[in-house]
Amino acid sequence: MEFLIDKECLNKAISDVNKAVSLKTPFPILTGIKITAYDDCLLLVGSNSDLVIEKVIPLSVDGVQVLEVRKVGSIVISAKYLNGIVKKLPDKIHIKVNEERLVTIQSNGILTTLPGLNAEEYPKFPEIDEVKSTEISNVELIEIIKQIVFAVSNSESRPVLTGINLTFKESQLTCVATNSQRLALRKIALVSDLEGSFTVPATSLIELIRLINNEAGVVKLLVIDSYMVFKLNSISLFSRLIEGNYPNISALLPNNSKTSITLNTNQLLKGIDRACLFASEWKNNNIFLEIQDGSTIRISSNASQIGKIEETQTINTIKGETNLSISLDGSFLMDALKVIKAEEIRVSFGGPMRPILIEPVDNSLYLHLISPVRSY
Amino acid sequence: MEFLIDKECLNKAISDVNKAVSLKTPFPILTGIKITAYDDCLLLVGSNSDLVIEKVIPLSVDGVQVLEVRKVGSIVISAKYLNGIVKKLPDKIHIKVNEERLVTIQSNGILTTLPGLNAEEYPKFPEIDEVKSTEISNVELIEIIKQIVFAVSNSESRPVLTGINLTFKESQLTCVATNSQRLALRKIALVSDLEGSFTVPATSLIELIRLINNEAGVVKLLVIDSYMVFKLNSISLFSRLIEGNYPNISALLPNNSKTSITLNTNQLLKGIDRACLFASEWKNNNIFLEIQDGSTIRISSNASQIGKIEETQTINTIKGETNLSISLDGSFLMDALKVIKAEEIRVSFGGPMRPILIEPVDNSLYLHLISPVRSY
Repeated sequence: MEFLIDKECLNKAISDVNKAVSLKTPFPILTGIKITAYDDCLLLVGSNSDLVIEKVIPLSVDGVQVLEVRKVGSIVISAKYLNGIVKKLPDKIHIKVNEERLVTIQSNGILTTLPGLNAEEYPKFPEIDEVKSTEISNVELIEIIKQIVFAVSNSESRPVLTGINLTFKESQLTCVATNSQRLALRKIALVSDLEGSFTVPATSLIELIRLINNEAGVVKLLVIDSYMVFKLNSISLFSRLIEGNYPNISALLPNNSKTSITLNTNQLLKGIDRACLFASEWKNNNIFLEIQDGSTIRISSNASQIGKIEETQTINTIKGETNLSISLDGSFLMDALKVIKAEEIRVSFGGPMRPILIEPVDNSLYLHLISPVRSY
Repeated sequence: MEFLIDKECLNKAISDVNKAVSLKTPFPILTGIKITAYDDCLLLVGSNSDLVIEKVIPLSVDGVQVLEVRKVGSIVISAKYLNGIVKKLPDKIHIKVNEERLVTIQSNGILTTLPGLNAEEYPKFPEIDEVKSTEISNVELIEIIKQIVFAVSNSESRPVLTGINLTFKESQLTCVATNSQRLALRKIALVSDLEGSFTVPATSLIELIRLINNEAGVVKLLVIDSYMVFKLNSISLFSRLIEGNYPNISALLPNNSKTSITLNTNQLLKGIDRACLFASEWKNNNIFLEIQDGSTIRISSNASQIGKIEETQTINTIKGETNLSISLDGSFLMDALKVIKAEEIRVSFGGPMRPILIEPVDNSLYLHLISPVRSY
């Protein structure tokens, strides 16, 4: 195998596929990046087996030649050292692999030698066939993920809760994340050939955001075997799906509330942020909310020995009972309020022991549910 | 004690003096910030006993009133919570301390209550009298510190080596840092009333850089008791001096060399950076330098199993023996080369077991000395 390549092209491709590589894997072959030189392109693959990132480098980009393949072939090279060295080379790079799988990387009189690994031993991943798929704009996909991903569970005790559940049904995509104490849900209208419910690890979706990196365009979504594939321009991200039944969300959403108020989002966020200062002494960052006589909401927290804080904010509108108090996890509230872009939100209370529902006043396709915490 | 104060003013002052506060101190009183309200100003003090930062807030800044003292007095308030809460308050702040030392911090209907500590128990630090002093420009002082501070020792086994030694003598300031394997030295011409040799902890000087924060102006240096005082506009930083004799540097500097070469600084830096990739397997980041026939220098490193790298660079000029090889700590070389701004450097070798001397070709007031390492 032998090829010459533009340094920046190779560097970008390595850094993209390297996002899937973990040095902690029990399989030494997966600490490497697989490079395959074809007559008409170079294919790089990085993987931790749950996540696979593939990138294709064509012979030319925008009419400028970036790659010259002198001899086809395939090799696996240590991701750590390949990434380290290519970044620091000055110019065009010449890579050559001999029959003993010794890799030489040459650029402007700088010569690096590394042992390669047998590409035959690299795991095979499903190939992309023509299957049912759907498309979504990069911008929209990133927004959805950012709006709900923080609500997934960090604990592996119920693996299905560490992912975001995507349901494609009747021209609608519903995305849900929950750790069973809180839940974030976002719906969008989407005409899709793809139908069904899939749970994708949150970690894969966070890598996807990094790969898209605010570039305009669309992502093609496919499901092949046990992987969901996100196909961007020259990059494909394969994420293994999490097996198991995702909880039935519609049963969790409250149908009615005792009290429902509307508030300024940013003002409430700032108030909760201040109250959180004295809430960190509590296991669940306890914040106390009290509606007083239907016109104001009192936000407070206290930590014995350390201090206490309180403030009242004006309620815009109120429906239902006019006196109510509840203890909530301040950090869950913050997470939800931070990602709501609407100026005004509706907060609905079912009672002191029932979860509260937070949603933008003018958008019923997006909501947060937060369970109360004990205040003793 | 009672005063009203502009939020931004108080916030900036707290964040400045907070740089000296450590939460790990064995003295609970030092986890607080001492605030004293005088008729005409507010004085804030933060300290970890080795480092003291004082800041004065006057009644008005640029003709605008920022402070109104209603009742003089003094209190110590938890730095962590004071810093946390003031940052998040919206507006003018009203602070009041009652006779039980309970502190209330009020702003726009937000009420925080914190227990205060007795200011009488806060340690006393020396007061600034009229003593011998010197002045140096902020920019110059920052430059000197950044050019040599990395060379101090990280080990407490010889405390004096964890500081930078400043010698004021015969209209010259000489600053030295060394960990005994490497040494960085910088001299500047400075007319000074202050005379003598003082060793200031590197940690204090790093905080000083953060405090100066690229603002133009001059720093006044004084020595009072066992402290060196750096006086900026409204801020004073007191740093305890490190006791003990600093090594005699002039005895360490080589008088002659076997070989002396000149090289492009940035090109050498890049070469060493690349070689360091395979040097991290060695305890001392071993890099091999070889002068070949007086015209080129070969830079290489290798790590068994992992790989090797080599390159040759052109030497600009050479004096003395034309063949030479030496093993050096690549990270020490990198540190030195990174802070040299001159395009061309002179590297002088005394032999394979003697330290090398690196200096800008056109500046003899600034140098680095690096000892060789074993290559087996």
